[in-house]
Amino acid sequence: MRILVVLRVVAVLLLIVSVFLLLPVLVAMLYHEDSIIWSFLAPMVLVWLVCVPILLLTGRAQGATISNKGGYLLVSSGWILAAAFSALPFFLSGAIPHYTDAFFETMSGYTTTGASILTNIEALPKAMLFWRSLTHWLGGMGIVVLTVAVFPLLGIGGLQLVKAEAPGPTVDKITPKITSTAKILWLIYVLMTVAEIILLMFGGMSLFDAATHTFGTVATGGFSPRNASVGSYHSGYIDVVITVFMMLAGMNFLLYYRAVIGDFRSVMRNSELRTYVGIFVVAALLIALNLDGHTYHSFGRSLRFASFQAASILTTTGFTTTNYATWPVFSQVVLFVLMFVGGSTGSTGGGIKVARIVILLKQGVNEMRYLLHPRGIFSMKLSGLNLRKDIVYTVTGFVFLYLFVLFITTLVVASGGNDILTSLTAALATLGNIGPGFGKVGPVSNYAYLPTYIKWFLSFSMVVGRLEIYTVLVIFTRTFWKR
Amino acid sequence: MRILVVLRVVAVLLLIVSVFLLLPVLVAMLYHEDSIIWSFLAPMVLVWLVCVPILLLTGRAQGATISNKGGYLLVSSGWILAAAFSALPFFLSGAIPHYTDAFFETMSGYTTTGASILTNIEALPKAMLFWRSLTHWLGGMGIVVLTVAVFPLLGIGGLQLVKAEAPGPTVDKITPKITSTAKILWLIYVLMTVAEIILLMFGGMSLFDAATHTFGTVATGGFSPRNASVGSYHSGYIDVVITVFMMLAGMNFLLYYRAVIGDFRSVMRNSELRTYVGIFVVAALLIALNLDGHTYHSFGRSLRFASFQAASILTTTGFTTTNYATWPVFSQVVLFVLMFVGGSTGSTGGGIKVARIVILLKQGVNEMRYLLHPRGIFSMKLSGLNLRKDIVYTVTGFVFLYLFVLFITTLVVASGGNDILTSLTAALATLGNIGPGFGKVGPVSNYAYLPTYIKWFLSFSMVVGRLEIYTVLVIFTRTFWKR
Repeated sequence: MRILVVLRVVAVLLLIVSVFLLLPVLVAMLYHEDSIIWSFLAPMVLVWLVCVPILLLTGRAQGATISNKGGYLLVSSGWILAAAFSALPFFLSGAIPHYTDAFFETMSGYTTTGASILTNIEALPKAMLFWRSLTHWLGGMGIVVLTVAVFPLLGIGGLQLVKAEAPGPTVDKITPKITSTAKILWLIYVLMTVAEIILLMFGGMSLFDAATHTFGTVATGGFSPRNASVGSYHSGYIDVVITVFMMLAGMNFLLYYRAVIGDFRSVMRNSELRTYVGIFVVAALLIALNLDGHTYHSFGRSLRFASFQAASILTTTGFTTTNYATWPVFSQVVLFVLMFVGGSTGSTGGGIKVARIVILLKQGVNEMRYLLHPRGIFSMKLSGLNLRKDIVYTVTGFVFLYLFVLFITTLVVASGGNDILTSLTAALATLGNIGPGFGKVGPVSNYAYLPTYIKWFLSFSMVVGRLEIYTVLVIFTRTFWKR
Repeated sequence: MRILVVLRVVAVLLLIVSVFLLLPVLVAMLYHEDSIIWSFLAPMVLVWLVCVPILLLTGRAQGATISNKGGYLLVSSGWILAAAFSALPFFLSGAIPHYTDAFFETMSGYTTTGASILTNIEALPKAMLFWRSLTHWLGGMGIVVLTVAVFPLLGIGGLQLVKAEAPGPTVDKITPKITSTAKILWLIYVLMTVAEIILLMFGGMSLFDAATHTFGTVATGGFSPRNASVGSYHSGYIDVVITVFMMLAGMNFLLYYRAVIGDFRSVMRNSELRTYVGIFVVAALLIALNLDGHTYHSFGRSLRFASFQAASILTTTGFTTTNYATWPVFSQVVLFVLMFVGGSTGSTGGGIKVARIVILLKQGVNEMRYLLHPRGIFSMKLSGLNLRKDIVYTVTGFVFLYLFVLFITTLVVASGGNDILTSLTAALATLGNIGPGFGKVGPVSNYAYLPTYIKWFLSFSMVVGRLEIYTVLVIFTRTFWKR
């Protein structure tokens, strides 16, 4: 029965995704790319042929509640199957000749990572590029709802905080909580998307360019339809707009809800938001000061490139406006350190996340107080609220497994003959859903050269990182499969 | 009054250290290096002129108990002043012309780090090289007593485990516990030292070479009087002896006590020991398999070099038998990952330490069990004993502050224009008391080229890492200086 419910929901998910395939079909028609339309329609028909019967056959499972275990299985398998299915257009049309590559690219899209195996992005048909960016947007939509509404219920990695710090919409008894929250969040997401598209078009972008870059921004994804990413526009205005929207996308979405209902106090005293902005400002200034006189001709220009790249890495977006691997090394190290941080909880950003880092640092400082006053009682506050101490356990477990998976991934990448910096930052960039790293996976390189088994492993890393580690790893435990 | 007690104990410590200056004087006489004898005797006279009056003047503080705060101040200032004083012979004799360098080298010695600023080690007088290695031995002696007897009392970073897992000598009411434990540990340490010296001399080393390398081994230090480190002997026998003793020095010294009193069960079921050996075996095999066919002509030779280097990095010794930076990259990445581990608690090894990593991984796994059974109660076992859950708090605080200091140190090194790999591994190698890193601080390089401020900061990192982070950092908190 449990499996039936999971199967049913996954089928619904795939059907929803398949409907979105109509958008790239529309793009293909607009740009007269008729010859590839079938590669979108064929998978769509396939999914309907498989999923509609599943829905009919599992009708009696309708409305059944889902257990915790079912929840994990549902989220993980849903994400993986969506990527497996959505990779088909790339593969069938020949735009990406190997299925491994197509899967990697699509998983990179849905997990809002932005790591690419494409060596010449602009050679792809517009419709394919649109679909590629759309997977970001859909993935971002999925992750916002998961982190705000689903993961906290499952108790994953301290994500209870997302709601504790910024309570979501109150719910009347009829509407299920998740649905009502999801609707509000999606409204915010859609409004943000529309606003950025319009602002980018003001800057001279075509609708196509504006839309694809917006998908990459609001989902903190990082896929660009241009080989030189956002740098290809050479526009300070566009850089600033995207910097601002990356930062907005890396914030806890429930804070927007608080702001909309007029509760600015919640927003202002949110510890995570303040730290997040603080890290951004410090990093951008450090880089700008380091760049000034080295690379760009004015402090203003230095600051523009510095803040774009700091925001891009911190929020785990991964857009670039320049080859930061040629920057003075101190700036590179600042970006490297940012790779360990990530966005806010409840945002579309990936990584360890600011709130967790705040909690663990506070724990470190608290421990010092205990050493000086062993019998003292020290509370831990976050956003002015007392924190239940057992959240430290949960966060510790999360961060440590995160680092553990990071090192395993590093070793796997290294087994393909990659140097330390490439291996470590490829692991960081995929597990943290960032996209570009350093070395052979740097800003002007890509993941194409890696052997097949590493591409599969990195796809796995991406989904493990995106689904907050536990959701996926828990399925590999013995306890999970015990009755 | 508190300050007086601290002052008194530090004075005693410096007097003890000054007595050890007679050993290099002896070496200088043996090797007819008469012209530098004064550079050992002058500091000795200086310290007596300062410290004896202090002892006389603070006589009324004799026997006074010391508070927790006093303990931190004592250990930190004692370590720093011992290094500041012991650097004088290098500086006065002109063997190391700049005091910053002399201090760096001596701090590297006392903290058993082994990072060096010397570009031509063999150019130094024998007596200087002996003193350099002796600082390792004294530092190792100090750290064993601190981690086994002092830090657990202060409650630092989960080190209660050192004793919980392998209880120390029982104490009758008259002998203070620390003294009795210290004596037994020092006896083990001295026996280990004698045994290794004899075994190395069997391998053809002179007494001088055997003694200096033994000091570097049992203290997991890593200073060698040879430019090519242990590799200069080209002897499989010597490599194996040192590999074995590095591993022995990286074990919890209380386990030797258990073994001596016949309690082998405690030793066999010690979780940390098993994990420590397991990590070593896996790392050595991974490297040997990777090297085989690439670099050396037989699997035996590959295994010899692989196990030496794995033991050297894991135990944070830092000896080298070859330039591992030219190994195939996978082997390098394995060593890089080992840099995050470190020796056992209660050993002379540095780093995060195996027990802490075991605890955090168990916490990660436990968290998964909670996710599946939110109302379940899961105990955490270590060496078959139930672990108090609040130890997870303490260990979390430690590891996180460790990583925080690591990133700060990385940024500081980078500010001198060093690349990511050099900056990160220089930070790892000093904070973890390892010695060599990768990049510009790799196995055949040294720290000489760094600007002065970075050398001071790295000296600080070494002592912070050596004294388990808290001992030093706690002094910088406001709470510490509040009445």
